[in-house]
Amino acid sequence: MLDSLNQIQVVLVEPTHPGNIGAVARSMKTMGLSRLVLVNPKKFPHYEASKRAAGAESVLETARVEDTLARAVSDCTIIYGTSVRDREVEWPTSEPRVAAIDILAHLRRQTTAESDSAAAAAILFGRESSGLSNEELDLCQAQIRIPANSEYSSLNLASAVQIICYELRLAALQDSFDESSEQESDTPLTALERRQLSATQAQRNGHLSHLMETLTELDFVKAESPTMLMRKLTRLYNKADLSVEEIQILRGILSAVQSRLAGNDY
Amino acid sequence: MLDSLNQIQVVLVEPTHPGNIGAVARSMKTMGLSRLVLVNPKKFPHYEASKRAAGAESVLETARVEDTLARAVSDCTIIYGTSVRDREVEWPTSEPRVAAIDILAHLRRQTTAESDSAAAAAILFGRESSGLSNEELDLCQAQIRIPANSEYSSLNLASAVQIICYELRLAALQDSFDESSEQESDTPLTALERRQLSATQAQRNGHLSHLMETLTELDFVKAESPTMLMRKLTRLYNKADLSVEEIQILRGILSAVQSRLAGNDY
Repeated sequence: MLDSLNQIQVVLVEPTHPGNIGAVARSMKTMGLSRLVLVNPKKFPHYEASKRAAGAESVLETARVEDTLARAVSDCTIIYGTSVRDREVEWPTSEPRVAAIDILAHLRRQTTAESDSAAAAAILFGRESSGLSNEELDLCQAQIRIPANSEYSSLNLASAVQIICYELRLAALQDSFDESSEQESDTPLTALERRQLSATQAQRNGHLSHLMETLTELDFVKAESPTMLMRKLTRLYNKADLSVEEIQILRGILSAVQSRLAGNDY
Repeated sequence: MLDSLNQIQVVLVEPTHPGNIGAVARSMKTMGLSRLVLVNPKKFPHYEASKRAAGAESVLETARVEDTLARAVSDCTIIYGTSVRDREVEWPTSEPRVAAIDILAHLRRQTTAESDSAAAAAILFGRESSGLSNEELDLCQAQIRIPANSEYSSLNLASAVQIICYELRLAALQDSFDESSEQESDTPLTALERRQLSATQAQRNGHLSHLMETLTELDFVKAESPTMLMRKLTRLYNKADLSVEEIQILRGILSAVQSRLAGNDY
């Protein structure tokens, strides 16, 4: 469920630039996350943060500020640290995609179990200059490593948050989808939607016969040997996955050609 | 192969803020992309762009500036537009993940085929305020829709680029992995295979102009009001990702219609 996204805390450890805090708020909100925790921010609140938040000020207003990381994550049942570097000391490492799925699965299990009091997950993002320290990573169950260009891995803080929140949203959408496909919905389609549906095989065949007929009248093909050309045209139109409306348009054009050709013969 | 990332152009259409251009360069370079094209940037070059690029100035230095989108994408064999909105007129729409895999697969097919001259893909990103126009999306084979919070979908430009480039990098990494697990074959392409390659945007435009001309001669459209119909036909044929040979066939049919119409007038 998309609600689970509200159980995930984005924790920025000692961010230096207030503009980045605002940009992070924006990245989070576009993906449906709302809980921001700041550990010892250099400047906050700050007009630069509000400016870069650009409509996501609600995330800044409810942000929690803590002076230690331990306090920031004390109510969390699972904690991940993010990094673009490989470390000498190996933490268990996940790709963002796998981590997102694991975090959502964790929250689902915990929430069903605990009924009311919602579990929380934390994802830690380090300083702009130096990332997370080894001691900070020690607090984490696992490290998320964002795959990046080894020659230039300097991801902007808000960009790193954007990627992780994007993966969390996809994982949450997948969860909702799995849930809803168990119960059917049956809203009727509008006329516009119906015309934009893919045509049926019978409608596609009707169009191709009409095309063939017109090409024969045009003397573009001889009636006896049309196979190769027709196969190519069939493949071409099948690639387009024509809608009902598109077939109406194409057949309208064919009819216009036919009626002009008929006119000439008289 | 990660090299394919160099065949992908990130095209920013009329970006307003030079800081965003720099941030986009940084997003691209962290994921291994290098080709940036700017269509009518409001301010470029600009110190704000260089400042936000933060180490990715090489991308700015080699950026190409064009005054029309048509020129920006003329050498591309596949074009995607990005959006967070649902449109009334439906373009074929992919998620970023699926689009990235499709783009890499397209480049792999084209490149094996053409030996030397590398194919190019373009991904269009619209204005900060208003995105891409319908006419601009008409140039595209498909739309990439970034899943976002429906109540606040205001993705920063560099964040949108970051997500797409991240997916492209993952797809390219997966390709390298698949390749290294099998062995290389490098048979040169036959003439037949070359004709089955995707057409360039210029070839596609040639076909659409020819179609338009023929429909006008047929009186199927009045020369002054062709827009809606033409947009639908453009979208239809773009969905089909026409090959060079298919365009030859379609234009052959159009020429046959034209010559019959001309015959009648005498």
